[in-house]
Amino acid sequence: MAGKKNSGPLHRRHILRAGLAGAGAAVSSGVVAADFVPAATQTPGKPMSTYGVPSPHEANVQRIVGAAYPVASPGTGSSRTPLHLLDGTITPAGLHFERHHNGIPDIDASTHRLLIHGLVTRALEFTVDELLRYPRTSRIAFIECAGNSGVNGAPQPPQTTAGAIHGLLSCSEWTGVKLGLLLDEAGIDSRAAWMIAEGSDAASLSRSIPLAQAREVGILALFQNGERLRPEQGYPLRLLMPGWEGNLNIKWLHRIKLTDGPVHARDETSKYSQLQPNGIARQFDLIMGAKSVIIRPSVGMTVPAAGFYEISGLAWSGHGRIAKVEVTMNGGQTWKEAELTGPVLPQATCRFRLPWEWDGKAALLQSRATDEKGNTQPTRAALMAQRAPGQIYHYNAIQSWQVMSDGAVRNVHV
Amino acid sequence: MAGKKNSGPLHRRHILRAGLAGAGAAVSSGVVAADFVPAATQTPGKPMSTYGVPSPHEANVQRIVGAAYPVASPGTGSSRTPLHLLDGTITPAGLHFERHHNGIPDIDASTHRLLIHGLVTRALEFTVDELLRYPRTSRIAFIECAGNSGVNGAPQPPQTTAGAIHGLLSCSEWTGVKLGLLLDEAGIDSRAAWMIAEGSDAASLSRSIPLAQAREVGILALFQNGERLRPEQGYPLRLLMPGWEGNLNIKWLHRIKLTDGPVHARDETSKYSQLQPNGIARQFDLIMGAKSVIIRPSVGMTVPAAGFYEISGLAWSGHGRIAKVEVTMNGGQTWKEAELTGPVLPQATCRFRLPWEWDGKAALLQSRATDEKGNTQPTRAALMAQRAPGQIYHYNAIQSWQVMSDGAVRNVHV
Repeated sequence: MAGKKNSGPLHRRHILRAGLAGAGAAVSSGVVAADFVPAATQTPGKPMSTYGVPSPHEANVQRIVGAAYPVASPGTGSSRTPLHLLDGTITPAGLHFERHHNGIPDIDASTHRLLIHGLVTRALEFTVDELLRYPRTSRIAFIECAGNSGVNGAPQPPQTTAGAIHGLLSCSEWTGVKLGLLLDEAGIDSRAAWMIAEGSDAASLSRSIPLAQAREVGILALFQNGERLRPEQGYPLRLLMPGWEGNLNIKWLHRIKLTDGPVHARDETSKYSQLQPNGIARQFDLIMGAKSVIIRPSVGMTVPAAGFYEISGLAWSGHGRIAKVEVTMNGGQTWKEAELTGPVLPQATCRFRLPWEWDGKAALLQSRATDEKGNTQPTRAALMAQRAPGQIYHYNAIQSWQVMSDGAVRNVHV
Repeated sequence: MAGKKNSGPLHRRHILRAGLAGAGAAVSSGVVAADFVPAATQTPGKPMSTYGVPSPHEANVQRIVGAAYPVASPGTGSSRTPLHLLDGTITPAGLHFERHHNGIPDIDASTHRLLIHGLVTRALEFTVDELLRYPRTSRIAFIECAGNSGVNGAPQPPQTTAGAIHGLLSCSEWTGVKLGLLLDEAGIDSRAAWMIAEGSDAASLSRSIPLAQAREVGILALFQNGERLRPEQGYPLRLLMPGWEGNLNIKWLHRIKLTDGPVHARDETSKYSQLQPNGIARQFDLIMGAKSVIIRPSVGMTVPAAGFYEISGLAWSGHGRIAKVEVTMNGGQTWKEAELTGPVLPQATCRFRLPWEWDGKAALLQSRATDEKGNTQPTRAALMAQRAPGQIYHYNAIQSWQVMSDGAVRNVHV
């Protein structure tokens, strides 16, 4: 297939001139429509249904469920979004990642209660129906587990898919009640500076959250991509703190207690704190950093031959909007700015795209995100220097994919 | 419950002063956390899964499948999105509306082909894998059947839910290949002015589309809300013409033929054309008009008592972005501009919200959308004057809901 000798971005004119390797097979000018009568036109199809499911031909598109969970607590673990099989920015609810510390509770919304108490003027208790009466807000936001991508901290990079490495990340449109509205209704005591949010699962997972920011950005989410929350994402109620550490977005939320300080719960001390080389742990590193990953191509995909491809991937930041994503095909010698699919929303995943003509030689692909606050995704070396060995949280380092001359893609540490 | 005497919009301060009828029950200041130990905390929960489904407690959230379909063709008919049970702007894929003319074909993507032929320089045939190699684009867009809301054309307004009346409307994030890229690759002959798009279902539904606009805005969609298209939305490939008549977005697309004129297919002549009172039918009314509907409250919901509520609903236009939505609680004597949940996107549904304090007396609620091109949603009387009796397509008239003094909501023609 004719093409430019050098790898690099393409102009549309070149795309048209070069065509794509193996795409758009020309057919005889004498072809008539009668030559193209698909079998499906000969058979009446299936009727309508009350709730649709994916095509059976897409049965391979599944969450990646982690292996080897404790027998005593089979619900402890995670499942990852198969990022490498998806596109766009919205994650379908059935593929939203999971991270549970003692499984998914079966909660009947009609018996669920939310208590707001502690340093308040008056404690309040809400049924779900009562919460559904309040004014609502909707927004698109990602949720990312603070442990996402941590497997890349291992000395040997895992040779596995983008979803298996980075799939504790999903993005949905959430709808619910602004937390601040209910906190103001309870009346915030002048001594209150933090709030403790607790779930009603068998782990009773709780986190301490700075109150002022919770009041400003927190949402009590009831809906996920238009319909009610899924059980594995917290049905009937979860806290949404857009851009904050994943487990702060407490699922199966039943209690909010206003306090004068953090309670130093398990999931912000023994876990989800960042041990540094000097032996001191960083605590309350609450916002997920600027991050990106190239998804096409990535491990498990083969680049068939020299020719034109589109590099694409996701970028996101807990600090706000993505400002730019730069991509290199030569391991950082030169960088090119990718196109961001609009609209670019704060604390939401953004799809980036860049044309690439591969010359058939080994290429080292990386993407580097910068958000609107000026935070730039660090190199792996820079990030690891700030961490104690084995430290895996908040891993937002640049992902490097080595495209081999035979078209295979490998995960590499650079 | 204390409240202002007059119905009208509320300020936040008033929301806090008045509280909500029946919401936020105060609890004793002596309550301790131990009084609130939900049963779910005592039982290890369910483990992770490969593809999630809604809570069994939400089993009532279903598409509304139309009744009485021909036995010979059980796949002919529709199912509607239950708008009254959802929120936000994204429709979950399992609840996206259906409209089929001979059922849903079971197509294996590996055997599916797309042919582009007719007045082109060279005819091209694509496999789905080949289409997946091209650069992609993503965008959020609604699809609305041209027959949506037509039941409101009946002399007696149907006393049924917002979903049953207006549910041939859904909104998703679509990802695919720009049609223009492939048309340019085939080479557009100077005589070509239209294109015929044809589906590979048992109805072989086809539509004629003006070529220049198809080349500019058309997308060959492969993904729906991040995952591959659902069978009932056209798996593996559909045409997306954002904002255009629903059935133009040909599902199970297998053929595009460039022509010098329209073919006047069945589904743009005997159906999907608008008969006017003078006996002449309007044809090729291709763009869906500016439209809105209040969803909360609507028929099937009861407004429990005088007090505060949030009126909310959806607005959309095939011409571009929604510019404003005005709401009246007194049948049009006074109008107030609602808040639009951002971002407001072109040819996408927009959620509008407005605080309302109901004084317990009969109230006539309406919403009126205006898009960025200046198109305003017409009154029912104005729209019906332009149509022959029984004419139901492109029904975008203002929806009126009468709230009775007992809190029941009725559909009324105004």
